Amino acid sequence: MKINKFVMPELIFGNGSISLVGESCARLGARKVFITTDSGVLSSDWFEQVTESCHNARLPYVIFSDITTNPKDYEVDKGVQKYLQEECDAVVGVGGGSAIDVAKAIAVLATNGGNIPEYEGVDKIKLPLPPQVMVATTAGSGSEVSQFSIITDSEKKKKLTIISKSLVPDIAIVDPQTLTTKSPHLTATTGLDVLTHAIESFVSIAATPLTDVQAKSAIALVAQYLRPSVASRMNKEAKEKMAMASVQAGLAFSNAILGAVHAMSHAIGGRFLLPHGDVNAILLPYVMEFNYLACPEKFLQIAELFGEEVSSRTTIDSGQRAIEYVKKLSVDIGAPQRLSEMGLSESDAAIIGQVAIEDACMITNPRDITAADVERLFKLAL
Amino acid sequence: MKINKFVMPELIFGNGSISLVGESCARLGARKVFITTDSGVLSSDWFEQVTESCHNARLPYVIFSDITTNPKDYEVDKGVQKYLQEECDAVVGVGGGSAIDVAKAIAVLATNGGNIPEYEGVDKIKLPLPPQVMVATTAGSGSEVSQFSIITDSEKKKKLTIISKSLVPDIAIVDPQTLTTKSPHLTATTGLDVLTHAIESFVSIAATPLTDVQAKSAIALVAQYLRPSVASRMNKEAKEKMAMASVQAGLAFSNAILGAVHAMSHAIGGRFLLPHGDVNAILLPYVMEFNYLACPEKFLQIAELFGEEVSSRTTIDSGQRAIEYVKKLSVDIGAPQRLSEMGLSESDAAIIGQVAIEDACMITNPRDITAADVERLFKLAL
Repeated sequence: MKINKFVMPELIFGNGSISLVGESCARLGARKVFITTDSGVLSSDWFEQVTESCHNARLPYVIFSDITTNPKDYEVDKGVQKYLQEECDAVVGVGGGSAIDVAKAIAVLATNGGNIPEYEGVDKIKLPLPPQVMVATTAGSGSEVSQFSIITDSEKKKKLTIISKSLVPDIAIVDPQTLTTKSPHLTATTGLDVLTHAIESFVSIAATPLTDVQAKSAIALVAQYLRPSVASRMNKEAKEKMAMASVQAGLAFSNAILGAVHAMSHAIGGRFLLPHGDVNAILLPYVMEFNYLACPEKFLQIAELFGEEVSSRTTIDSGQRAIEYVKKLSVDIGAPQRLSEMGLSESDAAIIGQVAIEDACMITNPRDITAADVERLFKLAL
Repeated sequence: MKINKFVMPELIFGNGSISLVGESCARLGARKVFITTDSGVLSSDWFEQVTESCHNARLPYVIFSDITTNPKDYEVDKGVQKYLQEECDAVVGVGGGSAIDVAKAIAVLATNGGNIPEYEGVDKIKLPLPPQVMVATTAGSGSEVSQFSIITDSEKKKKLTIISKSLVPDIAIVDPQTLTTKSPHLTATTGLDVLTHAIESFVSIAATPLTDVQAKSAIALVAQYLRPSVASRMNKEAKEKMAMASVQAGLAFSNAILGAVHAMSHAIGGRFLLPHGDVNAILLPYVMEFNYLACPEKFLQIAELFGEEVSSRTTIDSGQRAIEYVKKLSVDIGAPQRLSEMGLSESDAAIIGQVAIEDACMITNPRDITAADVERLFKLAL
């Protein structure tokens, strides 16, 4: 038995919890708050609750929203400049993975100095970070509870995976009411991102009993609630359950790390600036087919969590049903099916193979994998 | 949907993890460590690993072991005096609930001043506490992950329940190798304490999806591994699984609180200074029978987690099997069955009813309960 570690932020979950941002920051000793968000969130009808809560807690704040999907190093730099200029002493990220990952990266540079690429990899952050309160609004990234921040190196066109316990926020706020403003497409792809987090961490070679309970619960929730969540913007129960699935999958992958889907998706997303959820959604079944050999018994458990009848079959046959299930779910909810739809072609395979194999997430993939394997998977998914 | 909160320490779990005490304290900035423990732990063959780890981390330490089961306020006072005298700046608790609860209480008084009774109840601790690293060695109390500390008011002969997020340790270390020195009796009663934590938090009116996954996993682990753990001191797998069950049950009750078993057990334990695990073990089935009316569907799930065949029965019949299962488990592992064995009699019923009904744990009991109900349950369990 090896030594397992598990870390998570204080979690505040529920409709209306977004109005606790201000008092959460105040409780952590903040005196001026730097709010990172994106333009979509900024124009939502619920964003005002965040600023109002700061106002109620007598906390001045600055809003920074100059960020894009697959956020770039120069966007972080711009944020850091503003953070220091405005003499803020706490960060709040409100949004999906992009806004939260940028908020984390700003916290790192504002206190530790230097440039983002210096922090790529595991445990490179030396000095303590300012208080971090993260508000998740997509039921996707899990970044609000994780020790990850993913920032794109704009020169090298490469995503930098930064992993450190310091990046676990102090407080994570998850308010399902924010999900009612998402489009069906975004609901579908971020929902499949949740499923990817849960499945990759469950079959990860770093999985532990504590990550397994979270991953398994997330898989079962996605199976039951992703379809209705895509179908109806106002299905509150489905939104709540998908928000919980996202948190649980986030806790699982934060502590068990991920696998080949994310390693490939970081490589593709960094190079071609494509939406993370879309790329993951396409790759997941292909990587599952590849990884199947390593852990058929875990695939059997996944099939069972999906609600498939598995008892009367052999492990091998039953486990395969997990893959079939994911394919059908993806089609049902209208997720993109092929990388060629995103403008990718065979000529991109070699570089993706090279970059993906170096990604920190590849280390915990359950099946040994080479750059040639990645190339082959990429071509299969075209 | 109400707003749910969930908080837990950084967790380090596994054989050999006890040798990480020193570096964990150093990571939190400690310069002189106050180690609280009991005489049993002090004489174990693995305790040296704790002091050695402090030595390796170049951390001076002081050991304080003048504590008893159901630790008393004056023991805490003595510890605080020593802590201040020795100019320590971090606390480490190594042991079962007693050693850890005392370490927490010392941390409170050393920084916040005053006397322990002033902190009874919820959120009474105002100033931040020194770094806290807790090492669990009983697979029972769950105190290493919880926001609870239970200290006996020696004058009033009453247990004080102190609940505060500040009492969640910074780091919890759980090393299953420490369990191999426990007697079968202690293994049985602390194991039933784990089951009590899991069941009471699962049926608590403050249960949430996040506490439920932990409680359910703990119940299933106890069902599978408590018997073999009692049977063999050296069954490593059983020790590991029971240690994990204890952590998960601790996470569940820390965030969902408990119920009538603990309210009664605090009242009885405080007055008659009886072992907490023994009293809980006796009371659990009686309180389950009383609470059954409030949530038969949850009892059905408990029966299912115990591995009982429930599908072909009605909810009512199936749920009752959870109670039968607990009774049989308790007899199988040789746990005490009646309060009269502990020297209690009918004349004690009235005072226990009065005290228990005021306990903070009673608030989350799923069935409305009066002092008269407690008296009746007490007499049934005699």
